[in-house]
Amino acid sequence: MSYIKPLSKLIDELTALPGIGSKSAARLAFHILKIPKEKAYAIANAITDAKEKVFCCSICKNLTDTEPCSICSSEKRDRSVICVVESPKDVVAIEKTREFNGLYHVLHGAISPIDKIGPDDIFIKELVQRITPEIKEVIAATNLTIEGEATAMYISRLLSPLGVNVTRIANGIPVGGDLEYADEITLSKALDNRRKIL
Amino acid sequence: MSYIKPLSKLIDELTALPGIGSKSAARLAFHILKIPKEKAYAIANAITDAKEKVFCCSICKNLTDTEPCSICSSEKRDRSVICVVESPKDVVAIEKTREFNGLYHVLHGAISPIDKIGPDDIFIKELVQRITPEIKEVIAATNLTIEGEATAMYISRLLSPLGVNVTRIANGIPVGGDLEYADEITLSKALDNRRKIL
Repeated sequence: MSYIKPLSKLIDELTALPGIGSKSAARLAFHILKIPKEKAYAIANAITDAKEKVFCCSICKNLTDTEPCSICSSEKRDRSVICVVESPKDVVAIEKTREFNGLYHVLHGAISPIDKIGPDDIFIKELVQRITPEIKEVIAATNLTIEGEATAMYISRLLSPLGVNVTRIANGIPVGGDLEYADEITLSKALDNRRKIL
Repeated sequence: MSYIKPLSKLIDELTALPGIGSKSAARLAFHILKIPKEKAYAIANAITDAKEKVFCCSICKNLTDTEPCSICSSEKRDRSVICVVESPKDVVAIEKTREFNGLYHVLHGAISPIDKIGPDDIFIKELVQRITPEIKEVIAATNLTIEGEATAMYISRLLSPLGVNVTRIANGIPVGGDLEYADEITLSKALDNRRKIL
Protein backbone atom coordinates (compact mmCIF):
# COMPACT_ATOMS: atom_id res chain seq x y z
CA MET A 1 0.00 0.00 0.00
CA SER A 2 1.20 3.46 -0.76
CA TYR A 3 -0.63 6.78 -0.37
CA ILE A 4 -4.28 7.22 -1.34
CA LYS A 5 -4.81 8.61 -4.81
CA PRO A 6 -5.44 12.36 -4.27
CA LEU A 7 -2.46 12.42 -1.91
CA SER A 8 -0.08 10.53 -4.20
CA LYS A 9 -1.19 12.74 -7.11
CA LEU A 10 -0.31 15.83 -5.07
CA ILE A 11 3.05 14.32 -4.09
CA ASP A 12 3.77 13.51 -7.75
CA GLU A 13 2.98 17.07 -8.83
CA LEU A 14 5.19 18.54 -6.10
CA THR A 15 8.04 16.12 -6.87
CA ALA A 16 8.12 17.48 -10.42
CA LEU A 17 9.12 20.91 -9.06
CA PRO A 18 12.85 21.74 -9.10
CA GLY A 19 14.77 20.98 -5.91
CA ILE A 20 11.93 18.99 -4.36
CA GLY A 21 12.50 15.26 -3.90
CA SER A 22 9.90 12.67 -3.00
CA LYS A 23 10.52 13.03 0.75
CA SER A 24 10.09 16.82 0.78
CA ALA A 25 7.09 16.47 -1.53
CA ALA A 26 5.44 14.10 0.96
CA ARG A 27 6.22 16.50 3.81
CA LEU A 28 4.73 19.41 1.84
CA ALA A 29 1.65 17.37 0.89
CA PHE A 30 0.98 16.39 4.51
CA HIS A 31 1.48 20.01 5.51
CA ILE A 32 -1.08 21.09 2.92
CA LEU A 33 -3.55 18.51 4.25
CA LYS A 34 -3.02 19.83 7.76
CA ILE A 35 -3.43 23.59 7.21
CA PRO A 36 -6.89 25.24 7.07
CA LYS A 37 -8.75 24.87 3.78
CA GLU A 38 -8.55 28.62 3.02
CA LYS A 39 -4.75 28.59 3.27
CA ALA A 40 -4.42 25.62 0.92
CA TYR A 41 -6.80 27.27 -1.54
CA ALA A 42 -4.75 30.47 -1.30
CA ILE A 43 -1.69 28.55 -2.53
CA ALA A 44 -3.64 27.01 -5.42
CA ASN A 45 -5.10 30.42 -6.30
CA ALA A 46 -1.70 32.10 -6.18
CA ILE A 47 -0.46 29.56 -8.73
CA THR A 48 -3.37 30.00 -11.16
CA ASP A 49 -3.39 33.77 -10.59
CA ALA A 50 0.31 34.12 -11.37
CA LYS A 51 -0.18 32.01 -14.50
CA GLU A 52 -3.14 34.14 -15.63
CA LYS A 53 -1.92 37.63 -14.77
CA VAL A 54 1.82 37.51 -15.44
CA PHE A 55 3.13 37.89 -18.99
CA CYS A 56 6.14 39.38 -20.79
CA CYS A 57 6.21 43.14 -21.37
CA SER A 58 5.99 43.74 -25.13
CA ILE A 59 8.91 46.17 -24.99
CA CYS A 60 11.51 44.85 -22.53
CA LYS A 61 10.25 41.22 -22.17
CA ASN A 62 10.45 41.46 -18.38
CA LEU A 63 7.66 39.72 -16.46
CA THR A 64 4.78 42.11 -15.82
CA ASP A 65 1.10 42.33 -14.99
CA THR A 66 0.64 45.65 -16.83
CA GLU A 67 1.31 46.46 -20.49
CA PRO A 68 3.87 47.99 -20.91
CA CYS A 69 5.62 47.17 -17.63
CA SER A 70 6.11 49.70 -14.83
CA ILE A 71 9.73 50.39 -15.80
CA CYS A 72 9.07 50.83 -19.54
CA SER A 73 6.15 53.17 -18.80
CA SER A 74 7.90 55.15 -16.07
CA GLU A 75 8.75 58.78 -16.88
CA LYS A 76 11.48 58.83 -14.26
CA ARG A 77 13.75 56.33 -16.02
CA ASP A 78 16.68 57.33 -18.22
CA ARG A 79 15.62 56.28 -21.75
CA SER A 80 19.14 56.49 -23.20
CA VAL A 81 20.51 53.36 -21.48
CA ILE A 82 19.35 49.76 -21.82
CA CYS A 83 20.66 47.11 -19.44
CA VAL A 84 20.50 43.67 -21.06
CA VAL A 85 20.06 40.73 -18.67
CA GLU A 86 19.39 37.02 -19.04
CA SER A 87 16.41 36.62 -16.71
CA PRO A 88 13.72 38.59 -14.84
CA LYS A 89 15.47 37.67 -11.56
CA ASP A 90 18.48 39.71 -12.73
CA VAL A 91 16.26 42.78 -13.11
CA VAL A 92 15.18 42.45 -9.48
CA ALA A 93 18.82 41.97 -8.40
CA ILE A 94 19.95 45.12 -10.24
CA GLU A 95 16.95 47.15 -9.07
CA LYS A 96 17.86 46.28 -5.48
CA THR A 97 21.23 48.04 -5.88
CA ARG A 98 19.38 51.34 -6.68
CA GLU A 99 22.40 52.15 -8.87
CA PHE A 100 20.70 51.91 -12.25
CA ASN A 101 17.96 54.18 -13.53
CA GLY A 102 17.76 53.19 -17.20
CA LEU A 103 15.62 50.66 -19.04
CA TYR A 104 16.01 46.89 -19.22
CA HIS A 105 15.89 44.19 -21.83
CA VAL A 106 15.38 40.61 -20.71
CA LEU A 107 16.76 38.00 -23.13
CA HIS A 108 15.19 34.99 -21.34
CA GLY A 109 18.34 32.94 -21.77
CA ALA A 110 21.83 33.15 -23.23
CA ILE A 111 23.40 31.83 -26.40
CA SER A 112 24.51 28.27 -25.73
CA PRO A 113 25.38 26.02 -28.68
CA ILE A 114 25.62 22.99 -26.36
CA ASP A 115 21.96 23.42 -25.34
CA LYS A 116 21.06 24.30 -28.93
CA ILE A 117 20.10 27.87 -27.97
CA GLY A 118 21.04 30.24 -30.76
CA PRO A 119 20.58 34.06 -31.07
CA ASP A 120 17.09 33.52 -32.55
CA ASP A 121 15.91 31.53 -29.52
CA ILE A 122 16.29 34.46 -27.13
CA PHE A 123 14.99 38.04 -27.42
CA ILE A 124 18.00 39.53 -29.28
CA LYS A 125 16.06 40.55 -32.41
CA GLU A 126 13.67 42.47 -30.16
CA LEU A 127 16.65 44.25 -28.58
CA VAL A 128 17.95 45.36 -31.98
CA GLN A 129 14.50 46.73 -32.84
CA ARG A 130 14.62 48.94 -29.75
CA ILE A 131 17.81 50.69 -30.87
CA THR A 132 16.98 54.31 -31.84
CA PRO A 133 19.24 57.36 -32.01
CA GLU A 134 17.98 58.10 -28.48
CA ILE A 135 19.82 55.03 -27.08
CA LYS A 136 23.36 56.00 -26.10
CA GLU A 137 24.52 52.92 -24.22
CA VAL A 138 23.67 49.24 -23.93
CA ILE A 139 25.05 47.53 -20.83
CA ALA A 140 25.55 43.79 -21.40
CA ALA A 141 24.77 42.50 -17.91
CA THR A 142 24.48 38.84 -18.86
CA ASN A 143 26.05 36.35 -16.45
CA LEU A 144 29.84 36.06 -16.23
CA THR A 145 29.63 32.49 -17.56
CA ILE A 146 30.81 31.24 -20.94
CA GLU A 147 27.24 31.52 -22.30
CA GLY A 148 26.78 35.01 -20.82
CA GLU A 149 30.14 36.18 -22.20
CA ALA A 150 29.34 34.79 -25.66
CA THR A 151 25.95 36.54 -25.60
CA ALA A 152 27.55 39.84 -24.53
CA MET A 153 30.10 39.52 -27.32
CA TYR A 154 27.37 38.76 -29.86
CA ILE A 155 25.31 41.76 -28.78
CA SER A 156 28.37 44.00 -28.91
CA ARG A 157 29.20 42.96 -32.50
CA LEU A 158 25.58 43.41 -33.50
CA LEU A 159 24.98 46.82 -31.96
CA SER A 160 28.35 48.60 -32.21
CA PRO A 161 27.94 49.15 -36.00
CA LEU A 162 24.64 50.91 -35.19
CA GLY A 163 26.61 53.53 -33.28
CA VAL A 164 25.62 52.28 -29.80
CA ASN A 165 28.16 52.21 -27.00
CA VAL A 166 28.02 48.60 -25.74
CA THR A 167 29.58 48.08 -22.29
CA ARG A 168 30.08 45.02 -20.09
CA ILE A 169 29.71 44.76 -16.29
CA ALA A 170 33.05 44.32 -14.52
CA ASN A 171 34.75 41.03 -13.78
CA GLY A 172 36.74 40.83 -10.52
CA ILE A 173 36.98 39.72 -6.92
CA PRO A 174 33.64 40.13 -5.07
CA VAL A 175 33.48 42.60 -2.17
CA GLY A 176 34.58 40.77 0.98
CA GLY A 177 36.28 38.20 -1.24
CA ASP A 178 39.53 36.54 -0.29
CA LEU A 179 42.32 36.48 -2.91
CA GLU A 180 43.47 33.14 -1.55
CA TYR A 181 40.20 31.49 -2.53
CA ALA A 182 39.59 33.30 -5.83
CA ASP A 183 39.91 31.12 -8.90
CA GLU A 184 42.79 31.85 -11.30
CA ILE A 185 40.68 33.25 -14.13
CA THR A 186 38.84 35.68 -11.86
CA LEU A 187 42.12 36.78 -10.28
CA SER A 188 43.86 37.31 -13.61
CA LYS A 189 40.84 39.28 -14.90
CA ALA A 190 40.86 41.33 -11.70
CA LEU A 191 44.54 42.13 -12.32
CA ASP A 192 43.87 42.96 -15.98
CA ASN A 193 41.06 45.32 -15.04
CA ARG A 194 43.02 47.09 -12.26
CA ARG A 195 42.34 50.80 -11.91
CA LYS A 196 44.16 53.75 -10.40
CA ILE A 197 43.32 54.53 -6.78
CA LEU A 198 42.29 58.18 -6.73
CA MET B 1 11.24 47.65 -6.91
CA SER B 2 10.61 44.06 -6.01
CA TYR B 3 8.53 41.45 -7.84
CA ILE B 4 5.19 42.30 -9.46
CA LYS B 5 2.16 41.54 -7.31
CA PRO B 6 0.91 38.16 -8.56
CA LEU B 7 4.49 36.89 -8.48
CA SER B 8 5.31 38.19 -5.00
CA LYS B 9 2.00 36.79 -3.75
CA LEU B 10 2.94 33.36 -5.11
CA ILE B 11 6.40 33.62 -3.56
CA ASP B 12 4.84 34.57 -0.21
CA GLU B 13 2.48 31.60 -0.31
CA LEU B 14 5.32 29.21 -1.16
CA THR B 15 7.61 30.68 1.51
CA ALA B 16 4.96 29.80 4.11
CA LEU B 17 5.47 26.10 3.32
CA PRO B 18 7.82 24.14 5.61
CA GLY B 19 11.44 23.88 4.47
CA ILE B 20 11.03 26.47 1.72
CA GLY B 21 12.91 29.73 2.17
CA SER B 22 12.45 32.90 0.14
CA LYS B 23 15.17 31.93 -2.38
CA SER B 24 13.69 28.49 -3.11
CA ALA B 25 10.21 30.02 -3.19
CA ALA B 26 11.38 32.49 -5.87
CA ARG B 27 12.97 29.66 -7.84
CA LEU B 28 9.77 27.61 -7.62
CA ALA B 29 7.62 30.60 -8.61
CA PHE B 30 9.75 31.30 -11.68
CA HIS B 31 9.60 27.63 -12.55
CA ILE B 32 5.79 27.71 -12.32
CA LEU B 33 5.70 30.76 -14.60
CA LYS B 34 7.88 28.95 -17.12
CA ILE B 35 6.06 25.59 -17.40
CA PRO B 36 3.01 25.15 -19.67
CA LYS B 37 -0.27 26.45 -18.29
CA GLU B 38 -1.82 22.96 -18.00
CA LYS B 39 1.05 21.76 -15.81
CA ALA B 40 0.74 24.72 -13.45
CA TYR B 41 -3.02 24.21 -13.26
CA ALA B 42 -2.41 20.52 -12.51
CA ILE B 43 -0.43 21.52 -9.42
CA ALA B 44 -3.17 23.91 -8.27
CA ASN B 45 -5.82 21.25 -8.93
CA ALA B 46 -3.87 18.59 -7.06
CA ILE B 47 -3.81 20.90 -4.03
CA THR B 48 -7.55 21.67 -4.06
CA ASP B 49 -8.37 18.05 -4.95
CA ALA B 50 -6.36 16.67 -2.06
CA LYS B 51 -8.04 19.17 0.26
CA GLU B 52 -11.51 18.23 -0.96
CA LYS B 53 -11.21 14.46 -1.26
CA VAL B 54 -8.95 13.49 1.64
CA PHE B 55 -10.38 13.13 5.15
CA CYS B 56 -9.86 11.01 8.26
CA CYS B 57 -11.35 7.51 8.33
CA SER B 58 -14.10 7.47 11.01
CA ILE B 59 -12.68 4.25 12.49
CA CYS B 60 -8.87 4.39 12.40
CA LYS B 61 -8.40 8.16 11.72
CA ASN B 62 -5.93 7.43 8.92
CA LEU B 63 -6.17 9.72 5.87
CA THR B 64 -8.54 8.28 3.29
CA ASP B 65 -10.72 9.09 0.30
CA THR B 66 -13.22 6.32 1.05
CA GLU B 67 -15.31 5.77 4.19
CA PRO B 68 -14.23 3.61 5.95
CA CYS B 69 -10.66 3.44 4.65
CA SER B 70 -9.35 0.56 2.54
CA ILE B 71 -7.61 -1.08 5.50
CA CYS B 72 -10.58 -0.84 7.90
CA SER B 73 -12.93 -2.23 5.23
CA SER B 74 -10.58 -4.97 4.03
CA GLU B 75 -11.62 -8.56 4.81
CA LYS B 76 -8.04 -9.79 4.51
CA ARG B 77 -6.76 -7.92 7.57
CA ASP B 78 -6.40 -9.49 10.99
CA ARG B 79 -9.02 -7.73 13.14
CA SER B 80 -7.51 -8.86 16.45
CA VAL B 81 -4.48 -6.53 16.35
CA ILE B 82 -4.40 -2.74 16.26
CA CYS B 83 -1.14 -0.94 15.56
CA VAL B 84 -1.19 2.56 17.09
CA VAL B 85 0.93 5.19 15.30
CA GLU B 86 1.38 8.93 15.55
CA SER B 87 0.84 9.94 11.93
CA PRO B 88 -0.48 8.70 8.58
CA LYS B 89 3.11 8.62 7.29
CA ASP B 90 3.87 5.92 9.85
CA VAL B 91 1.09 3.75 8.41
CA VAL B 92 2.74 3.97 4.98
CA ALA B 93 6.14 3.16 6.50
CA ILE B 94 4.80 0.06 8.28
CA GLU B 95 2.77 -1.08 5.25
CA LYS B 96 5.96 -0.94 3.19
CA THR B 97 7.54 -3.61 5.43
CA ARG B 98 4.68 -6.05 4.52
CA GLU B 99 5.20 -7.47 8.00
CA PHE B 100 1.94 -6.34 9.56
CA ASN B 101 -1.51 -7.48 8.55
CA GLY B 102 -3.67 -6.04 11.33
CA LEU B 103 -5.57 -2.78 11.69
CA TYR B 104 -4.22 0.67 12.47
CA HIS B 105 -5.11 3.56 14.71
CA VAL B 106 -3.64 6.97 13.91
CA LEU B 107 -3.38 9.29 16.92
CA HIS B 108 -2.43 12.41 14.89
CA GLY B 109 0.19 13.42 17.42
CA ALA B 110 1.67 12.36 20.74
CA ILE B 111 1.21 13.47 24.32
CA SER B 112 3.54 16.42 24.87
CA PRO B 113 3.00 18.61 27.94
CA ILE B 114 5.59 21.11 26.63
CA ASP B 115 3.49 21.73 23.50
CA LYS B 116 0.31 21.58 25.61
CA ILE B 117 -0.88 18.41 23.85
CA GLY B 118 -2.72 16.21 26.34
CA PRO B 119 -4.42 12.81 25.87
CA ASP B 120 -7.66 14.55 24.87
CA ASP B 121 -5.98 16.44 22.00
CA ILE B 122 -5.12 13.26 20.09
CA PHE B 123 -7.36 10.32 19.10
CA ILE B 124 -6.83 8.21 22.25
CA LYS B 125 -10.50 8.22 23.32
CA GLU B 126 -11.41 6.88 19.87
CA LEU B 127 -8.85 4.09 20.34
CA VAL B 128 -10.42 3.05 23.66
CA GLN B 129 -13.83 2.94 21.99
CA ARG B 130 -12.48 0.43 19.45
CA ILE B 131 -11.47 -2.07 22.14
CA THR B 132 -13.79 -5.08 21.96
CA PRO B 133 -13.24 -8.67 23.19
CA GLU B 134 -12.16 -9.39 19.62
CA ILE B 135 -9.01 -7.24 20.05
CA LYS B 136 -6.18 -9.37 21.41
CA GLU B 137 -3.22 -7.02 21.03
CA VAL B 138 -2.49 -3.32 20.67
CA ILE B 139 0.99 -2.51 19.35
CA ALA B 140 2.14 0.92 20.52
CA ALA B 141 4.20 1.96 17.48
CA THR B 142 4.53 5.64 18.43
CA ASN B 143 7.95 7.20 17.85
CA LEU B 144 10.88 6.28 20.09
CA THR B 145 11.00 9.87 21.38
CA ILE B 146 10.11 11.11 24.85
CA GLU B 147 6.62 12.07 23.60
CA GLY B 148 6.14 8.77 21.81
CA GLU B 149 7.28 6.80 24.85
CA ALA B 150 4.97 8.77 27.14
CA THR B 151 2.05 8.15 24.79
CA ALA B 152 2.84 4.41 24.61
CA MET B 153 3.00 4.27 28.40
CA TYR B 154 -0.31 6.15 28.71
CA ILE B 155 -2.04 3.79 26.24
CA SER B 156 -0.63 0.76 28.03
CA ARG B 157 -1.96 1.91 31.41
CA LEU B 158 -5.33 2.74 29.87
CA LEU B 159 -5.85 -0.49 27.93
CA SER B 160 -4.17 -3.18 30.06
CA PRO B 161 -7.02 -3.11 32.66
CA LEU B 162 -9.41 -3.83 29.76
CA GLY B 163 -7.62 -7.15 29.22
CA VAL B 164 -5.74 -6.08 26.08
CA ASN B 165 -2.15 -7.16 25.55
CA VAL B 166 -0.31 -3.84 24.89
CA THR B 167 3.12 -4.25 23.28
CA ARG B 168 5.83 -1.79 22.23
CA ILE B 169 8.03 -1.89 19.11
CA ALA B 170 11.66 -2.71 19.92
CA ASN B 171 14.37 -0.22 20.78
CA GLY B 172 17.90 -1.02 19.55
CA ILE B 173 20.69 -0.45 17.08
CA PRO B 174 19.34 -0.07 13.50
CA VAL B 175 20.29 -2.71 10.93
CA GLY B 176 23.64 -1.70 9.42
CA GLY B 177 24.24 0.52 12.45
CA ASP B 178 27.69 0.98 13.95
CA LEU B 179 28.04 0.50 17.72
CA GLU B 180 30.75 3.16 17.76
CA TYR B 181 28.30 5.83 16.62
CA ALA B 182 25.21 4.69 18.55
CA ASP B 183 24.16 7.03 21.36
CA GLU B 184 24.50 5.75 24.93
CA ILE B 185 20.78 5.40 25.63
CA THR B 186 20.14 3.38 22.47
CA LEU B 187 23.14 1.18 23.22
CA SER B 188 22.10 0.56 26.83
CA LYS B 189 18.53 -0.27 25.69
CA ALA B 190 19.92 -2.59 23.03
CA LEU B 191 21.93 -4.36 25.77
CA ASP B 192 18.88 -4.52 28.04
CA ASN B 193 16.75 -6.02 25.31
CA ARG B 194 19.34 -8.60 24.23
CA ARG B 195 17.94 -11.96 23.18
CA LYS B 196 19.28 -15.46 22.87
CA ILE B 197 20.76 -16.41 19.50
CA LEU B 198 18.91 -19.55 18.48
